[in-house]
Amino acid sequence: MDDNSIKTVRFGILGCANIARKVARAIALAPNATLCAIASRSKEKAEKFAAENAFPASVRIYGSYDQVLEDPGVDAVYVPLPTALHVRWAVMAAARNKHVLLEKPVALHVADLDRILEAFESNGVQFMDGSMWLHHPRTARIQSFLSSSNTIGPIRFIHSTSTMPAPPEFLENDIRVKPELDGLGALGDLAWYCIGASLWAKGYQLPTSVTALPDVTRNNAGVILSITASLLWDQPHQTLATIHCSFLSHTSMDLAICGSNGSLHLRDFIIPYHETSASFDLTVGAKFVDLHIGWNVRPEEVHVATELPQEALMVQEFSRLAASIRDCGSRPSTKWPEISRKTQLVVDAVKKSLELGCKPVCL
Amino acid sequence: MDDNSIKTVRFGILGCANIARKVARAIALAPNATLCAIASRSKEKAEKFAAENAFPASVRIYGSYDQVLEDPGVDAVYVPLPTALHVRWAVMAAARNKHVLLEKPVALHVADLDRILEAFESNGVQFMDGSMWLHHPRTARIQSFLSSSNTIGPIRFIHSTSTMPAPPEFLENDIRVKPELDGLGALGDLAWYCIGASLWAKGYQLPTSVTALPDVTRNNAGVILSITASLLWDQPHQTLATIHCSFLSHTSMDLAICGSNGSLHLRDFIIPYHETSASFDLTVGAKFVDLHIGWNVRPEEVHVATELPQEALMVQEFSRLAASIRDCGSRPSTKWPEISRKTQLVVDAVKKSLELGCKPVCL
Repeated sequence: MDDNSIKTVRFGILGCANIARKVARAIALAPNATLCAIASRSKEKAEKFAAENAFPASVRIYGSYDQVLEDPGVDAVYVPLPTALHVRWAVMAAARNKHVLLEKPVALHVADLDRILEAFESNGVQFMDGSMWLHHPRTARIQSFLSSSNTIGPIRFIHSTSTMPAPPEFLENDIRVKPELDGLGALGDLAWYCIGASLWAKGYQLPTSVTALPDVTRNNAGVILSITASLLWDQPHQTLATIHCSFLSHTSMDLAICGSNGSLHLRDFIIPYHETSASFDLTVGAKFVDLHIGWNVRPEEVHVATELPQEALMVQEFSRLAASIRDCGSRPSTKWPEISRKTQLVVDAVKKSLELGCKPVCL
Repeated sequence: MDDNSIKTVRFGILGCANIARKVARAIALAPNATLCAIASRSKEKAEKFAAENAFPASVRIYGSYDQVLEDPGVDAVYVPLPTALHVRWAVMAAARNKHVLLEKPVALHVADLDRILEAFESNGVQFMDGSMWLHHPRTARIQSFLSSSNTIGPIRFIHSTSTMPAPPEFLENDIRVKPELDGLGALGDLAWYCIGASLWAKGYQLPTSVTALPDVTRNNAGVILSITASLLWDQPHQTLATIHCSFLSHTSMDLAICGSNGSLHLRDFIIPYHETSASFDLTVGAKFVDLHIGWNVRPEEVHVATELPQEALMVQEFSRLAASIRDCGSRPSTKWPEISRKTQLVVDAVKKSLELGCKPVCL
């Protein structure tokens, strides 16, 4: 263990999910993180994964998740396991004093999430979910426009989508549509982003009520493949958000935020088109010219560069918090668990509205 | 009356609404139309309007709408009167054998519209509503992508908005929010476009059901200032459309159509940013690159030029149909009345859903 690996936060990864390739690269890119260990349920699978992704020889390869949690050279774990396994492994990781970056959706319902979060609180370790887009500098830039009272004005309407055209085999067999693994289906995998974006735009104020729309689609096992829902805020002024999430539609990641004075649009809010720069469209004070034969302004494209990809920025922020706890005795940040919990509450409310035949569910 | 004015369709305008300025200009621009008469309830007001808009001296100026309808030199009338007056004046115009270009919303409910359409059918004259955007060549271009089975694929989701930030005096006193004049408020004035666009995208198949969302806002007189609703199609595959229309939000005219294989986006679908050229964004076959760190394609901006503004193309198409009836004994086209009637049926269903506390209304 060299000096560098002590100063940085030392990561283990539980499982060889496809997304782990992206996060392993992000750990390599983040200046304050190092990948130290990878585990699968079989050592052979972990070895193959490490070789395919050109992990350094220093990365320890394990044939069980337990071994990562028992490794004293691991400060933090990234957990991309199926949602149904989150309680078990996140709680166990917290009990072993590991900080956890937990892939979304974080839990099947808020009761499970509360078991997880209690374990983190009582062990004084950091929790964060894997919502990468929140860490892109574009997100902060948009936030600055939303916060400026003269730019967008009070938000009246938010619309977001997260859709991808899954092939037939995915719709029956992928982990994300297996009731015993990711029972929330598209509501967990995709709506997590849209609900998260709506809450983020509203400064994490919970909506007054949530209503599912009557177009839910399920696979033969009853798992949600597509869902549309609305979130309503009554105070301090009325805001409605619509979200549409589907494994049955062309790839889209639209986010539109419309206030009384301006609006913001982007179509790649979850994964930017390109790694090094992203943009959004800003329109302020739009009016029609005389005779209503055109507009006084067109949307302005605002570009935001980023030196590190958003997932590396996520790892960097998580590692900063973990290192602060480890090296300076800080308390874990409550910001990220609170964001996850509010998102989960709305996920649960959409599910309940569906169960009630699309009746509004108050929060 | 010179030769040219006989070959062209000779228009009268009932009323001096602001929108009449735009349509008067469109009549001047359309090669097969001529403005011949303008009426207001006072001759002075009509004279002032004619002077302000530099109407030719040949335009006859009347102090009552009846006089336009009695003028044998008028083939067709444009009616931008408040919706509550449409039955009276459209039926009277049809009875005098005038073709009518009727401003939207065409009626307060479908029973009124049916009275209007029956008058047109029995008198053999043309009816068309004032939805200008349907006549832009961009609309036809988008239609060609929607019709091509390999481009967009079956439509899964449609989202549209029509919003404008009305000043306080508008919200209390404008014709469009007066219960006795335009009692449908934003549902008539703005949602007409979004409902029309959703129906258009679906080839004018009526939705199975329509559901208002719980964010309706009304003024003190009970007229709708903002409304969100969803339209659901069950056959041949499921499609959901959401519409958001408001006098309380920043100007927006978003239209997004997402199929299984591609998607289309525009943000100026009702009034293009510029008169001479318009565009839309087309994205087909979008996927994430390896590691999901970007996209394989970005939206392509498709430009569509137009020699005439969309409102002049509307007048041209309407005049073509009217001239064909007048000069060749053709029957009126049923296409335009059918589009208006389907739009009205959905407007009525949204209104009914609101009255039922946002319950779905089947069509």
